[in-house]
Amino acid sequence: MKKTQIKLADKNPKADDVRMRGFKKRSPVEDVITWLDQQSIDLPEQRIPLQEAAGRVLAADATSQFNIPHFERSMMDGYAIVASATQGASSYNQLQLQVIGKSMPGQGSTAKVTSKSAVRIMTGAPIPDGANAVLPAENIEIDDQHIMIMESVAEGRNIGRIGEDITAGSIILKKGRRLRAQDIALLASIGEETVSVLKKPRISIAVTGNEILEVGEPPKDYQIINSNGPMLEVLCNRDGANTINSRIIPDNPELIKQAMLDDYDILLLIGGTSVGEEDLAPLLLAEAGDLAIHGIAMRPSRSTGMGTIGHKLVFLLPGNPVACLCAYDFFAGRFIRQLSGHAKKEPYRSVRKKLKQKMVSMIGRTDYARVCLSGDFIKPIAISGAAILSSTTQADGFVIIPTNSEGYPPETEVDVFLYD
Amino acid sequence: MKKTQIKLADKNPKADDVRMRGFKKRSPVEDVITWLDQQSIDLPEQRIPLQEAAGRVLAADATSQFNIPHFERSMMDGYAIVASATQGASSYNQLQLQVIGKSMPGQGSTAKVTSKSAVRIMTGAPIPDGANAVLPAENIEIDDQHIMIMESVAEGRNIGRIGEDITAGSIILKKGRRLRAQDIALLASIGEETVSVLKKPRISIAVTGNEILEVGEPPKDYQIINSNGPMLEVLCNRDGANTINSRIIPDNPELIKQAMLDDYDILLLIGGTSVGEEDLAPLLLAEAGDLAIHGIAMRPSRSTGMGTIGHKLVFLLPGNPVACLCAYDFFAGRFIRQLSGHAKKEPYRSVRKKLKQKMVSMIGRTDYARVCLSGDFIKPIAISGAAILSSTTQADGFVIIPTNSEGYPPETEVDVFLYD
Repeated sequence: MKKTQIKLADKNPKADDVRMRGFKKRSPVEDVITWLDQQSIDLPEQRIPLQEAAGRVLAADATSQFNIPHFERSMMDGYAIVASATQGASSYNQLQLQVIGKSMPGQGSTAKVTSKSAVRIMTGAPIPDGANAVLPAENIEIDDQHIMIMESVAEGRNIGRIGEDITAGSIILKKGRRLRAQDIALLASIGEETVSVLKKPRISIAVTGNEILEVGEPPKDYQIINSNGPMLEVLCNRDGANTINSRIIPDNPELIKQAMLDDYDILLLIGGTSVGEEDLAPLLLAEAGDLAIHGIAMRPSRSTGMGTIGHKLVFLLPGNPVACLCAYDFFAGRFIRQLSGHAKKEPYRSVRKKLKQKMVSMIGRTDYARVCLSGDFIKPIAISGAAILSSTTQADGFVIIPTNSEGYPPETEVDVFLYD
Repeated sequence: MKKTQIKLADKNPKADDVRMRGFKKRSPVEDVITWLDQQSIDLPEQRIPLQEAAGRVLAADATSQFNIPHFERSMMDGYAIVASATQGASSYNQLQLQVIGKSMPGQGSTAKVTSKSAVRIMTGAPIPDGANAVLPAENIEIDDQHIMIMESVAEGRNIGRIGEDITAGSIILKKGRRLRAQDIALLASIGEETVSVLKKPRISIAVTGNEILEVGEPPKDYQIINSNGPMLEVLCNRDGANTINSRIIPDNPELIKQAMLDDYDILLLIGGTSVGEEDLAPLLLAEAGDLAIHGIAMRPSRSTGMGTIGHKLVFLLPGNPVACLCAYDFFAGRFIRQLSGHAKKEPYRSVRKKLKQKMVSMIGRTDYARVCLSGDFIKPIAISGAAILSSTTQADGFVIIPTNSEGYPPETEVDVFLYD
C-alpha cells in the first residue's frame, strides 16, 4: 500500500512535485511577505487630467515654475500701512492715518502708502506700494476716511511673502507619491492642468470551477454563483488597480494555462489551489513559470500560492470566499497597494478592544479571525469556517493572531481591523 | 467716531446683523457638530448593477430567497462516509472501505454510500446519498480502490449544512448599510445582479472671487488659480458624493444668490465667508435661507458658516486653502460621509505619537495643526498659516487640539491623523 502523502517541495517545486496531497511544509506568513516585497512590476507613465489624478502615483518630481504667492499679499482683512509710522502708538497716543484707497484680491490699489496714510486691504489682496505691514481691521477704530492706530506693528506683519508657499524652481511633490486631494490643489495652483502618473497595474481575474455560475443567475443544482470575482474587482479597484478582465474558467488545464499566458500585470486565479489531484492551478503555474510559494501557515487561506511568469505576477487564491478575501488582503492586495503608493499594511482602520472570550491559535500559524464589536469588547463570530461568507458581512472586522502566538486569554486588549 | 465692531448675532442672525467686522461670538466646534448632526437630507433610491454598488448605501433590507449552501457540501478534500461505520477504528483496528465514486463541485456522485464504501469528494462538492461525514484525505491511507480508516468520526463532521451561511428568508444586509466588497459577494451569491441603493448626494461647488483663474491657466497679475475647487471635488468623491457642478463665480451678489438657488443637495460656497463688507456669502445665505452658524472657535477656518435653504444644506467655506480643507473635513465632509453610510469621524487613519516640541492652543478653541512624522515623534510644520497650502502637502497628517485644551507639552502622546 503506497502512502500518498507525497511531499511538496519547500519552494520552487518542480511541476512533478506539486501533484500530491497535504503540504509538506507551509511557509510562515512572514516569509511570504519577504518574498512578495522583493517582487516588482514596472508600470509605464501616462498623462491624465489633474481632476482624475487623486490616488494615482506621480511618475516624476513635480517642480513649480512659479512663486506662490507670486506677489506680496495680505494675510488679514485690515489696513496696509508703513510699520515705522506706528512706533509709539497706544490707546493714549493714537495715530491717525488717512485711508487713501482699497486693495481687493486680484485687483490691488494704485495708491502709494506713506507714514500718514493707509489702504484698506482684504485677505489675499496685493500689498500696495509703500506699505510694509497690515493691521487687522479688528484692532482699530474707523471714522469715514480715517483710522486710529493704537499699537505699534513690526515690519512684515500679516504680509505673505513672495514664494512663501512655493518657491519657483523647487520640487513640490516627489516622484512615487500617491496624490492626495491637497496635492491636486497644489498642482492646480502652479498652473498644471494634467499630470504624469504611473498607469494602474492591469489585473486579470479568473475564477476557475465547473460549478461556478455567472452573476445574476439563480443558484441551482449543485452550482454556485461567482461571488469571488465581483468581490475581488471591488478590492482591486479600492487598492488602485485596473481590472482588465474578470471571468469564469472551467476546470480545464488548457483554458487555465491560456489565462496564465494572457497579457496582464497581475493574475488572480481563484480556486483549485490546494494539493488534490483536481487542483490544477499550482501545477500549471509551476509549468508555465515559477511557483515560488505554495502552502502558507495561516488559517484560513493555507492553500494560497504565488509565483511569476516572466515579468508577470500570479496569485493563486483559494475558492472559499473567506479564504479568498483573506489571501487577497494579506498578499495580492498588499502588492497592489504598494504599486499604488499606498501604505503596505492592511487597508483598514484599527482600534484596540478587549476580548470577551479567549481566542485560540497555534505557534507557527497566523490566524485571521472575524469578530464583532460589543461595546468595549469584541467577540469572535460563531460560525466562521472559510466557506461562510456571511462571517465577513456579520463581522465588524478581524483580529490577526500572529505566527508566534498561541492565542489570547479573555480580557486581552488586541488590535481590531475594521472592515468599514 | 463710531466703533464698527458691530456684533454678530449668536445664531440665526438677521441679514442686517451680518454685515460687520469681527465675530461677536464664535460657536465651539462641538456646538456646530451638534447642529450639523441634526440636519438631514432625503436621498431617493436607484437600482444599479451589483458591480458598481461598493461603497453605496443599501436602500432596503436585502433578503435571500435561497439557502446558501442550498445542498449539503463537503468542507474538505476527502472521503464521504457513513460515520457509524468508523466506530472503533484506530491504527490497530483499521477499517477498509471501497471507493465507489467521486463527487466533484457542481457535479456530485450518483453512488450511494454504505457502511462498507466511501466516495472521494472535493471541497464544495455535494455529499452523496448515504454519507453523513467527510474524512480529510490527509488522515487516511489509500490503495487504488480502497481506503484505510484509522479513526472514528462523528456524524456531520466536515459537512456544510444547508443554509448554514445564509438561511432562505433571512435578512442578510440591513437598509442603510454601506456596501463592502464582501457584501457585494454575498449579494452575488444569492443571485442578485442589481441592487437598490440611495442616490449619492448632489454637490454643487462654487468658488467665489474676481481673482480666481481656471485650472490650467498660468498664475498672472494678482490672480490665483482655483485650487479649492479641484481639491473639494476629490474630497467629495472620496466621501461618496456626486459633484454635479464645480465652477468659479465672481464677487457678484446676484450670481452668488443664483448659485444658492440652484438645484443641488449640498452647496459648498468658497470664499467671502468672513465679516468684512466684501464678504457676501453669509449675508446672502441669511437672505436666501437660514444662516444657522457663522464664526467657529477654531483655527484655521474660523470664518466657516453653514445653514439651510429649504431642504438644501449650504456650507460657507473659507477661501484660504488650508482653512477650506479643514472646514470641509470637520463639517461638510462629516455630513457627506454620514449620508454615505461612513463613520462620521475623520476619514483618516490615526496613530499615536509623541510630540517633539510643545503645541500651543487656547481654551475655547479647536486647533487643526499640520505635523510631520519624525521616527516615533511628530513635529509641527514650521510655516503653517491658513494660506500655506504646501503645509498640507509637506505634512504627514494633523493633530486636533480640542476646545478644552491649552495645548500639550513636549513628549505628550497624541493621536495623529494621517493624510494618506
